[in-house]
Amino acid sequence: MKAISVLGSTGSIGTQTLEIVEEFPSQFRVVGLSAGRNLSLLSEQISRHKPEVVALADESLIPELKDRLRAFGLGKSDENWPQLLGGNDGINAVASWKNSDLVVTGIVGCAGLLPTLSAIRAGKDLALANKETLIAAGPVVLPELKKSGSRLLPADSEHSAIFQCLQGTPWTDNARLSTGVPTPGLRRILLTASGGAFRDWSIEDLERATVKDATSHPNWSMGRKITVDSATLMNKGLEVIEAHYLFGIDYENIEIVIHPQSIIHSMVELSDTSVLAQLGWPDMKLPILYCMSWPVRFETPWRRLNLADIAQLNFHAPDTDKYPCMQLAYEAGKKGGTMPAVLNASNEEAVAQFLDEKIHFLDIPKVIHDACDRHQSDLNLQPNLEEVISVDKWARNAVKENVERGVLRISLTN
Amino acid sequence: MKAISVLGSTGSIGTQTLEIVEEFPSQFRVVGLSAGRNLSLLSEQISRHKPEVVALADESLIPELKDRLRAFGLGKSDENWPQLLGGNDGINAVASWKNSDLVVTGIVGCAGLLPTLSAIRAGKDLALANKETLIAAGPVVLPELKKSGSRLLPADSEHSAIFQCLQGTPWTDNARLSTGVPTPGLRRILLTASGGAFRDWSIEDLERATVKDATSHPNWSMGRKITVDSATLMNKGLEVIEAHYLFGIDYENIEIVIHPQSIIHSMVELSDTSVLAQLGWPDMKLPILYCMSWPVRFETPWRRLNLADIAQLNFHAPDTDKYPCMQLAYEAGKKGGTMPAVLNASNEEAVAQFLDEKIHFLDIPKVIHDACDRHQSDLNLQPNLEEVISVDKWARNAVKENVERGVLRISLTN
Repeated sequence: MKAISVLGSTGSIGTQTLEIVEEFPSQFRVVGLSAGRNLSLLSEQISRHKPEVVALADESLIPELKDRLRAFGLGKSDENWPQLLGGNDGINAVASWKNSDLVVTGIVGCAGLLPTLSAIRAGKDLALANKETLIAAGPVVLPELKKSGSRLLPADSEHSAIFQCLQGTPWTDNARLSTGVPTPGLRRILLTASGGAFRDWSIEDLERATVKDATSHPNWSMGRKITVDSATLMNKGLEVIEAHYLFGIDYENIEIVIHPQSIIHSMVELSDTSVLAQLGWPDMKLPILYCMSWPVRFETPWRRLNLADIAQLNFHAPDTDKYPCMQLAYEAGKKGGTMPAVLNASNEEAVAQFLDEKIHFLDIPKVIHDACDRHQSDLNLQPNLEEVISVDKWARNAVKENVERGVLRISLTN
Repeated sequence: MKAISVLGSTGSIGTQTLEIVEEFPSQFRVVGLSAGRNLSLLSEQISRHKPEVVALADESLIPELKDRLRAFGLGKSDENWPQLLGGNDGINAVASWKNSDLVVTGIVGCAGLLPTLSAIRAGKDLALANKETLIAAGPVVLPELKKSGSRLLPADSEHSAIFQCLQGTPWTDNARLSTGVPTPGLRRILLTASGGAFRDWSIEDLERATVKDATSHPNWSMGRKITVDSATLMNKGLEVIEAHYLFGIDYENIEIVIHPQSIIHSMVELSDTSVLAQLGWPDMKLPILYCMSWPVRFETPWRRLNLADIAQLNFHAPDTDKYPCMQLAYEAGKKGGTMPAVLNASNEEAVAQFLDEKIHFLDIPKVIHDACDRHQSDLNLQPNLEEVISVDKWARNAVKENVERGVLRISLTN
């Protein structure tokens, strides 16, 4: 039985992880949970899963959580009463909890960085859903992984697809896994992209794109921010950077291909020209489960794929003019160091400004480009964690300032 | 450096194997060759590859081969002069040659059975292209594999695709490989079929199908017999039986899906619903190379797949009324024992009669069905090799007799 800690247990990744634990009660038990402010859901999770330790980001909420646990019939003397911790130290304690075998990191944003590093330093295996861990902090995290022997298992569908396809390579042994060492025999990664909300729009039509248009994803049900990232293809750009760090592959060997049906979740081309692909319905539960069951496969009653019903899979090259964010991501990735952190943070802020209707959809790449451009002179190739976090903050402010100044004066071509 | 013996070196599989050896001179050397009557090509192969041993099916041709070798400048006292053997004993000696690491079995038909068994008994790994080995002689071969620890690596594109996809399963270890033991985690095999020459024909139109129509394959360049098997879908039916023996999977979990582009060479569905697929151009060299390089991947300059150029992959369920051979194969497979040998042999004879324009295209399934039907009372579930070979002969004669009697009197529904 595998002992699981879930960081960000009340978020999308966290709740799906706990659903999987309930589907496989003889395989998994929950030993640790951490959450933000959703005490109602957290207390229900505690009463169901009876973890050994629970951490709240905001320490001051602990008394309220205790009240809620009593309402679930848990008494303080109860053996099911968990150790309750607060703040960063508390979350780090859950991340490195001695009894856990696997840490699922569902915390969004830079807040997930420190706990993820705590888990790595404690030698825990990780199901990684926090993208900042590699995109912003790749140069910090990779040496730590190498040192501790901790293994990063990708919990998002594209990198899971690649990871599943690479299981066939005899060199995907435990020691090499996710340490950025080039994977012998891997020639190219083909990241599939749905094309997002605007895949059938012309470049000209994008001038009239609204928030409502950009937040309607054709295939996946996701949060608004990620849905906008799909529409700009920045999600794919960020995945390119993540793939670079995870699988130790050069940027020129990572390609994006538009695949509107989102059935093939990504592919690898091996050195002998053979291509392996992983297919499935667009559902995050499968990649999360695979992190948890890896290296074996569990039996699930989930909906099975029927290609004869799907009938058709389409592919085309992405239009670089239509999706400038894609190119920005490749450039930031190639520069390395702190540049991907700037890309990621400026994108988050730009999308927030777009969702607030402060900037136009077509301004998103402009403000990101400007932030990356300005960061060039401060580029730090071997940052530490504090420097990554500080660069992240700088980039968000840089975007805000630009928005206040009026972004439309910024040209992508300057 | 891997030492290779090639049985049937002048055939399609044999010549492609030797091409691969020449492409990777530091990885492979040829230690043994066997061939039938093509002395011109064989002597050229000997002078290029300098094998230690060569066998000719027809012993009486040895003097002529010697003359040809001298014409290539090889002298009998030459250290490159191979040991020359003849007949079945000679071919078996090449198959079990002590210095070979891998035996590529490209001999077509039942003639390949005895040498394949010799290689297995000698504990050699096999790149298997001879389909009779498993289809006709599965019940004979599987226990021998288990005994000797010899490993069957599939050299045809569909089973290679499945094999490649299953590399990801931690249980595909050397000991279990190809011994018919169920593969844990494997839920379903999806064999893709191009649909053959008649994929766009209606059932009614098949009434006017000619030999010329049936021997024009849309994707693969293959021999006439195999091209007709693609048109009847019997090739897929035979592959279903082969997959059953290779991967230890029940017939109800092997599905055929029509995929006209032949880019996905087959797929596996794992127990958690994840589907893995192998893609590539329709070219036999890749699966042959993978047998030879396995478990690693070699670097090739071969044509790379570009899905954006291909643009579209289609899938649909096969029409069972249009392709009755498919159903006959499932039925023969489920009966097991000697029945698949009858299916295979009666199909070979039926196709030969069709190519000779003695029977109509739509008569092919009728004569096969009749042979299987008549064999039912003699079904032998645990035949030895001699019994398999005798059943094979019986089935061919049964078809010939039927054709002489006039097959159109046989109804599929009786």
